[in-house]
Amino acid sequence: MWYKNEVTQTLNCDYPIIQAGMAGGVTTPELVAAVSNEGAIGTLGAGYLNPDELTEKIKAVQNRTQKSFGVNMFIPETPRYCSKQVARSRQLLKSYEQELHVKPGKITERIESTFEEQINTILKLKVSVSSFTFGVPDKELVKELHKNGVKVIGTATTVEEAVINEQAGVDIVTAQGSEAGGHRGTFHSSYEQGMIGTMSLVPQIVDEVGLPVLAAGGIMDGRGISASIMLGAQGVQMGTAFVTSLESGAKEQHKQAILQAKECDTTITSVFSGKPARGIENDFIKQMTPYQNELPDYPIQNELTKNLRKEAAKRNKPEWMSLWSGQSPRLSGNKHVSEIIKELIDGAEMIYSSRAHKS
Amino acid sequence: MWYKNEVTQTLNCDYPIIQAGMAGGVTTPELVAAVSNEGAIGTLGAGYLNPDELTEKIKAVQNRTQKSFGVNMFIPETPRYCSKQVARSRQLLKSYEQELHVKPGKITERIESTFEEQINTILKLKVSVSSFTFGVPDKELVKELHKNGVKVIGTATTVEEAVINEQAGVDIVTAQGSEAGGHRGTFHSSYEQGMIGTMSLVPQIVDEVGLPVLAAGGIMDGRGISASIMLGAQGVQMGTAFVTSLESGAKEQHKQAILQAKECDTTITSVFSGKPARGIENDFIKQMTPYQNELPDYPIQNELTKNLRKEAAKRNKPEWMSLWSGQSPRLSGNKHVSEIIKELIDGAEMIYSSRAHKS
Repeated sequence: MWYKNEVTQTLNCDYPIIQAGMAGGVTTPELVAAVSNEGAIGTLGAGYLNPDELTEKIKAVQNRTQKSFGVNMFIPETPRYCSKQVARSRQLLKSYEQELHVKPGKITERIESTFEEQINTILKLKVSVSSFTFGVPDKELVKELHKNGVKVIGTATTVEEAVINEQAGVDIVTAQGSEAGGHRGTFHSSYEQGMIGTMSLVPQIVDEVGLPVLAAGGIMDGRGISASIMLGAQGVQMGTAFVTSLESGAKEQHKQAILQAKECDTTITSVFSGKPARGIENDFIKQMTPYQNELPDYPIQNELTKNLRKEAAKRNKPEWMSLWSGQSPRLSGNKHVSEIIKELIDGAEMIYSSRAHKS
Repeated sequence: MWYKNEVTQTLNCDYPIIQAGMAGGVTTPELVAAVSNEGAIGTLGAGYLNPDELTEKIKAVQNRTQKSFGVNMFIPETPRYCSKQVARSRQLLKSYEQELHVKPGKITERIESTFEEQINTILKLKVSVSSFTFGVPDKELVKELHKNGVKVIGTATTVEEAVINEQAGVDIVTAQGSEAGGHRGTFHSSYEQGMIGTMSLVPQIVDEVGLPVLAAGGIMDGRGISASIMLGAQGVQMGTAFVTSLESGAKEQHKQAILQAKECDTTITSVFSGKPARGIENDFIKQMTPYQNELPDYPIQNELTKNLRKEAAKRNKPEWMSLWSGQSPRLSGNKHVSEIIKELIDGAEMIYSSRAHKS
C-alpha cells in the first residue's frame, strides 16, 4: 500500500498521518488517543504545559490507547525583554481587559526549565514520539531521546531549516508550508522568508535532505494527502482538520469560526503571542496590527494576552480570541476523528485508483 | 492516459500544460511555438504589446507551428492618477536614472483602446486560445470570442474570483496560488487576501466551480503536475519553469538569478509596476519598499520604471531589474523546451507508476 513507508515504520503506525501538536487546549487526551487508535499519530501539544499538567495529559492518553502517540514541544527561546514594549502592550491591552473585567497577564520566567522538565516527563512516561518547533533540538538531546527509544520529528519552513534538522539527527522533518494554521515554525530566517507554499517547499526540501519529509499546510483531505505523496513527502501533518473534530478541545467559537470561514479569511499576525501565526482575521487583529512592531517578542506577548483571550472565549467574544486556522477552512468538518481518518484514507485510495490509474 | 481530459479536448493539445503568458519579452515566438510543438500550449504574453507588435509576434508563432497556442491579455484597469504620487515616484527614481543615464519613464494613455485592438488582432489572426488576468473578461466579450472559435481561460486567486470567471462564461480557470512568480492576478479582493497557497486554493476552487481548473504556483516538474492532478486540477500553468528555458526571451541576468536562487529569495513587491508581483529580492526592491505606499498604481508605476529597468539589463545591473520568479527556483533548469516538456511528462508518468501504484 502507498501508506506503508519509512514514516509508518519509524513511528510504528498504520498511516503516515500526524495530527499536529497544537498548544492551548486543542489537543485533549481524547483527541490524541482517538487519532492514534485509528492508526495515525495523535500528538499532545505540550507547548504551554507545566510538567504536572503534561504528566496528567500523557497518562490520560495512555489510559485511552496502547498505540504510539507524540508530544510536541517548543524549543525554548530567550526573548529580548524590553520594558518599554511591555509597557506599551499593557497600555494597548487595557481597554480589552477592562471590558472583560480581567487582570492583566503576568509574565512568568521558567521557559528553559519547563522544557527540560517536559523532556524528563516524556522519557519517564515512555512516550514514543517527540516533535519540536520554533527551533531545532540539539544533537545531544536527540541522542538522549534516541537512546531511550523516542523518535524525533523536527519542523522546517525553509530548505536550510530542514538541513539543520537533519544535521541535528532528527528522524523525520515536517515541511511547514505557508498555508499552515497557527504559529510559524521558522527559526533560521525572517518569518517572511519562511513563507513558502507547500507545493514549492516540499519537493525542494525532499531534494536536499535524506530524511523522510512530512508535508504540512493546507492539507485537509485525501486530495491533499495524495498530492503530498506525489510531491515526494512520505506523510502529512494536519492541524486545522482536527481542530474542528468533535474530540478537539478547541473552544466552540474557534470551531465555528473555522467551519464558517473562507480560504481568504486568514492572515498572519503576531499580535496575540509576539510570534507570527496564521488565524482568522478578527477585530483584535485589525485593531492591534498598527502597533504590531511596538509589542514584545514571543512568549512575552503571549503571556500578556493570556487572561484576555481566555475570558473572551468565556464571554463568547470570538472577535478577541486567537482563531488559528490554515488556508483551507472550506474543507473542514465537525466530525468524529474516526470519520475524519476514514475519509482521509478512503479519499486518498479513491483518488489513486481513479486519477492516477486512468490509463 | 491521465493527461487526456477536458483541458486537452478544449484546447486541442496533447498535454494539459499551459506555458504562462508572461509579458515583458519572455515569451518569444520561439518559446511559444516550441511549447505548442511539444504538445502543450504556448502562450504569448501580450500585456504590454501594441497591436502591430502583437500581430508580428502572432505571425511569427504561426510560421513556426500549426498547433494551438494562446495569447494572454491584461484586463484594462483605470488607474487612479494622482499627481502627487507620480511626482514622488519620479523623485525617488531620479538617482537610478541619473546613474544609468536614462530619461524618466513616460506615461502613455491608451490602455482601453490597446485591449480592444488586441482582441481584434487575435480574432483576425485566428488565434485559438485566449487567457486573461488582472480581471475577468465580460460576458459579451466571452461570447464574441466563443463565436469565433476562441477558447477562454480566466485567472483566479480566490474561490470567489473563480466563481466570477465561471459566471462570465470562461472555459477554464487558472487557480494562481501564492507561490506563483510575476504579477498577482487578484482583482476582487486585496492582494493579501488573494495570497492562498496552491495546495489550499486548488481543491477549494475545484469544489465550487464546474469548470476545469488549472493549478499554478510552485509547479516545476512531474511531481508538481501529478500533485495538481491529485488536488482535482485538470492541468497546470507554469511560468518560471519556462523563463529559464533556452527559447525564452528573458534577459540573461534574469535567467541566471532564477537558476541561482533559493526558495526563500523571492518576495512580493509592487515597487516596479504598482501591482504586487513575486520576484527575487534585490537592491531596488529593498531600497524602494519603504516608499511602496507612496507610489502610483499599476500601470502608471510600470511606465515610470520602464526605461530604468531596460537600461539596468543592458548595463548588467540585475540589482535594479524585475527578476520575476515563483517560489521553486531550485527546480529550474537552463534547457530546451523539448527537454523540459519531456521531463515533465516522463516525471509525472514515473511518479504515477511508482508512488501511486505501490500496492
